[in-house]
Amino acid sequence: MTASSLKIVFQGQNAANFRQGFEQLIDPQHQVLDLSDALDQAGERAHYESADVVIGIKLNASMPVPGKARLFHAPAAGTDAIDTSLLPATCTLANCFGHENAIAEYVIAALLMRHVPLAVADRDLRQQRWTYWAGRPDALRTELGSQTLGLLGFGHIAQTIALRAKAMGMRVHVANRSAVRHAAVDHSWALTELKAFMGSCDAVVVSLPLTANTQGLVNAEALAAMRPDAVLLNVGRGAVVDEKALYEALLHRHIAGAVIDTWYQYPSPTQPECAPSQFDFAALDNVLMTPHMSGWTQGTVQRRQATLADNIGRLSRGEPLLNVLHGPT
Amino acid sequence: MTASSLKIVFQGQNAANFRQGFEQLIDPQHQVLDLSDALDQAGERAHYESADVVIGIKLNASMPVPGKARLFHAPAAGTDAIDTSLLPATCTLANCFGHENAIAEYVIAALLMRHVPLAVADRDLRQQRWTYWAGRPDALRTELGSQTLGLLGFGHIAQTIALRAKAMGMRVHVANRSAVRHAAVDHSWALTELKAFMGSCDAVVVSLPLTANTQGLVNAEALAAMRPDAVLLNVGRGAVVDEKALYEALLHRHIAGAVIDTWYQYPSPTQPECAPSQFDFAALDNVLMTPHMSGWTQGTVQRRQATLADNIGRLSRGEPLLNVLHGPT
Repeated sequence: MTASSLKIVFQGQNAANFRQGFEQLIDPQHQVLDLSDALDQAGERAHYESADVVIGIKLNASMPVPGKARLFHAPAAGTDAIDTSLLPATCTLANCFGHENAIAEYVIAALLMRHVPLAVADRDLRQQRWTYWAGRPDALRTELGSQTLGLLGFGHIAQTIALRAKAMGMRVHVANRSAVRHAAVDHSWALTELKAFMGSCDAVVVSLPLTANTQGLVNAEALAAMRPDAVLLNVGRGAVVDEKALYEALLHRHIAGAVIDTWYQYPSPTQPECAPSQFDFAALDNVLMTPHMSGWTQGTVQRRQATLADNIGRLSRGEPLLNVLHGPT
Repeated sequence: MTASSLKIVFQGQNAANFRQGFEQLIDPQHQVLDLSDALDQAGERAHYESADVVIGIKLNASMPVPGKARLFHAPAAGTDAIDTSLLPATCTLANCFGHENAIAEYVIAALLMRHVPLAVADRDLRQQRWTYWAGRPDALRTELGSQTLGLLGFGHIAQTIALRAKAMGMRVHVANRSAVRHAAVDHSWALTELKAFMGSCDAVVVSLPLTANTQGLVNAEALAAMRPDAVLLNVGRGAVVDEKALYEALLHRHIAGAVIDTWYQYPSPTQPECAPSQFDFAALDNVLMTPHMSGWTQGTVQRRQATLADNIGRLSRGEPLLNVLHGPT
């Protein structure tokens, strides 16, 4: 069977990140085009409507219909901005992972930062102050390895974190829809036992996708079940954790702290910088705030390019696609 | 056989850190006394000279002779401040580890800090600047897991680091006196191949003890063999790395950076704060300076207390001692 030639469009700024060197990863017979976010340049609309493959992170009613597309491929894990009702019946929706190593490094770095005060030690020793010097009784620090890590959700990200946390010596607890059996997991809880799970952990990492079932899952009640010395990390989607409940748990110090990478408000083309929440998290001293950065590394881009190229080759050869989320219907 | 009653002295401020709750770990028939660093209080000298067990980190010609001691136990790994020629012939010198988990956490934290810019990201997002936001092409960071870690020396500390580094996805190289075969080690070099080893690594961790063979082992030539984008970490003993050569390699940016926890000058009772080197490391922006803190955690104290108590029990029952470095002669 001869592989078919495909018209591939990279739509928007996010997709453009995966564009460099992409031709080298696919059969030269394919056509690759770059389209803007607004699709308002000459000919862009027609290219979008006639593409065999769309690489992009959003599809909504304000956009043209990619009526010929057989593959709509997000170069990302989350597809909540892609309205699948607008996809043609013959189209498959697929996503990419490849960010799990990067996110695991972010999580372990943020956890270790709470136990190894490198920045303060460096600042002080530069001024000849030997804060934390071994032998000083008031300088003793804690160890991450003695703690229990909770993983809410157990997909690619959480599994990758679990292996690293276990190697650091941590106990690993998981709360998941289905029971988990995994070499790095010490205890698995059902989601119906969420409060007991939350109370069992020194740190809870949320890595759930945003769905109707997960929205607001970590609510005031779940946060209240956490230990007062425990910390919450969110690297999944902001809205899985109730915004007001999180802010108040931190403000009133019902939990010791939070590391928040996924938020409630994001910049847009018309508002390139904005606060990440309607609540003033920036006024809190017990939150580490980062701008949805945890998965964004050169390694992630390379691994996602490999996934995109693999699926395009499969489509071209009529083989089954990987990472399929929806369709064809 | 009946266990014998022992007179145990904790000498000095460092030993005092391991004193709290120590009676609960040993047979109540033993006598435990606390002596000062200077041994200048009433009766201290006599207690020191008559002790069966001395717990301390130094012994030199300015001090009384612990002539009855059958065990001189450092509550630390390094015993370079203990002059073994002053020990009675019947005395065993032993040391403690138990710091390897703490040091491994310090090393992984310092390595991750170079790849995950949490502090800058937090500072910026608090001002509504989305630096490092996923999707921004200029925000891509690197991954620790793609790198090669070099371990110079392969004792307790390096083995513990190796397991964690391997779980993070790193390649692990070792340079050691004897060849190393270990599940977490990808390549083992002889010390005669030091330059090739240094050049093969993105980061080199020195964890060697200070001996006549290791002093200045990492000299100007060894540092020059490192890649210009590589980083040196020293958690062993300062003088294993040549002081002037390290300073100049950083000053002239022949290497990308250093993380230095073990130094060339330390505070003393008469000078409680001092610069850690005769060279002005504090003026460099490519060094993370910490005050010999890497192993100093509550976990380390507990694990060392357990080792001290175990060896005291063994001595009392006439059983072989553990962690023996010297004697009886």
